[in-house]
Amino acid sequence: MDSPKRDAVPPPGPIRRELSIVDRIGERLGRARFCDPGAERWFGDDAAVLVPPPGVDVVLCTDAAVEGVHADMEHLDAFDLGWRAVAATVSDLAAMGADPWRLVLSVSTHAGVDVDQVVAGAVAAAEAAGCPIVGGDVTSSPTCVVVAAATGLVPTGQAVGRDGANAGDVLFVTGPLGGSAAGLRLLRARRSGSAVDRHRRPRPLLVAGRLAREAGASAMIDVSDGLGLDLARLAKASGVGVALEVVPVAAGATHEEALGGGEDYELVISTPDPDGLRRALARGGCPEPIEIGVVTVGPERTLLGSPLDDAGFAHDVL
Amino acid sequence: MDSPKRDAVPPPGPIRRELSIVDRIGERLGRARFCDPGAERWFGDDAAVLVPPPGVDVVLCTDAAVEGVHADMEHLDAFDLGWRAVAATVSDLAAMGADPWRLVLSVSTHAGVDVDQVVAGAVAAAEAAGCPIVGGDVTSSPTCVVVAAATGLVPTGQAVGRDGANAGDVLFVTGPLGGSAAGLRLLRARRSGSAVDRHRRPRPLLVAGRLAREAGASAMIDVSDGLGLDLARLAKASGVGVALEVVPVAAGATHEEALGGGEDYELVISTPDPDGLRRALARGGCPEPIEIGVVTVGPERTLLGSPLDDAGFAHDVL
Repeated sequence: MDSPKRDAVPPPGPIRRELSIVDRIGERLGRARFCDPGAERWFGDDAAVLVPPPGVDVVLCTDAAVEGVHADMEHLDAFDLGWRAVAATVSDLAAMGADPWRLVLSVSTHAGVDVDQVVAGAVAAAEAAGCPIVGGDVTSSPTCVVVAAATGLVPTGQAVGRDGANAGDVLFVTGPLGGSAAGLRLLRARRSGSAVDRHRRPRPLLVAGRLAREAGASAMIDVSDGLGLDLARLAKASGVGVALEVVPVAAGATHEEALGGGEDYELVISTPDPDGLRRALARGGCPEPIEIGVVTVGPERTLLGSPLDDAGFAHDVL
Repeated sequence: MDSPKRDAVPPPGPIRRELSIVDRIGERLGRARFCDPGAERWFGDDAAVLVPPPGVDVVLCTDAAVEGVHADMEHLDAFDLGWRAVAATVSDLAAMGADPWRLVLSVSTHAGVDVDQVVAGAVAAAEAAGCPIVGGDVTSSPTCVVVAAATGLVPTGQAVGRDGANAGDVLFVTGPLGGSAAGLRLLRARRSGSAVDRHRRPRPLLVAGRLAREAGASAMIDVSDGLGLDLARLAKASGVGVALEVVPVAAGATHEEALGGGEDYELVISTPDPDGLRRALARGGCPEPIEIGVVTVGPERTLLGSPLDDAGFAHDVL
């Protein structure tokens, strides 16, 4: 074994450090208030053992936060990186109308990023979402890549896909858009503002997603890559078009940021029962959803009659 | 949005390429022979929707393969990297005695690694393991990091942890060790040999894991980081010691590679019923397990009476 990166019989130092990282992650998770596994087994074995309640489907998704790609490390820190990986993943549960269940975390990182802070941010986001981290993996990498895989629960057969929108349904978004992109712009200009926190610590809309499902939403998607791109995904999956009347812009954001910025994690909701949706969200204490347009036979996607740009954040990996 | 890495309104090129990657992954998965989701929803939504059968616990784990860390890209290719991420993760299911269920894949990569080949390798390993990929995520990263999160199923309450070994149990390993490390050594010397394939394309021992559980194994762990280190983990979790009589060395490997090489993915099995284990594995067509020693009151871990080195691969990320 002649690689400096992989030694068959490494000196005691690295092993001790690795064990201590795992121990410290376990300790941190042990301190998390939701760590009461009961009949389950969390953290510390080859895999976690989970006990699904009866009458549910299990929803499964994964998302990554990459140093320098999803997080400009000049302006965000290791805690933010961990938070954002978990928040982005849990947001996918919200978009299915699922309740969060359990999560595993993979941290591939190097000495330049504080792994304890990555884990602290991930644990904080998981606690905020009520989706306990039950296991994970820490490994070396020249680039810090944090990957969360989350499970959620939904009553059997009731998950809300992207593919259920029908012509005539009304389209809503749970809040104004572009806040995250505006926050990044402020950070880079070394300015402050409420949008900064939206960028650093996005919050998945789990309650709104569950209430929308219960209120009969026909389709949902979270705005992770930009309204234009995510709406295009919903429309293509459903085989419909969309006619938008408005793009709600968050305070301090531009129209372009609202349409193409992404990472807002607001939910786009299609429903045949707009009043039912409004009532359900109001009863649950959620902000009033914003009506943005209607689902059409399609396939055209328009904003005030003009073609809607499917702008959004895309990863150039070819 | 002033970063070259993140454009609010990028030119059409990158978006089209990203959509086409997702489409192509979907196509590749669509071609995989196990793609018959029935009541489930796989790939193409925010999350996959899975239907657990009654009477099971769900086992959940994650593992990563990092370019240059877990895979020396001078000697392995993108296909191998995808294969190894999936195999390492599924091996953790085997170590719990679980049957493979479903898997999600996160690929963070760059133009220098063929993402199609990463996915092809992951799909091939998933097919070989009978653990279909049901969703995933592709993103940009300066370092290629492939993370799999796998779920498995086990009859309620019957997962085999690391923590159940008792003094007097007999310790087995499912096969000789060091083959993967020997394979890497051969690759670096630009030589061939059967060990090379063990390094490039490890195979998780799912059948042996399930049979060992059914035969009453008290504890299991897979040899991912080296026998010494993984045995130490089992012993510490169980609060016991171990007294090894032998370290079985794979053909072409050295004693050091067998003890500290890792990535063999053989299973270490502790059982109060050695004959029952032998019979169960024989009936299932598995190779005869190799008796390596006994579990002791501990806490000492010894090999032929001398202290056992807990050598193994550890990641230096502090």
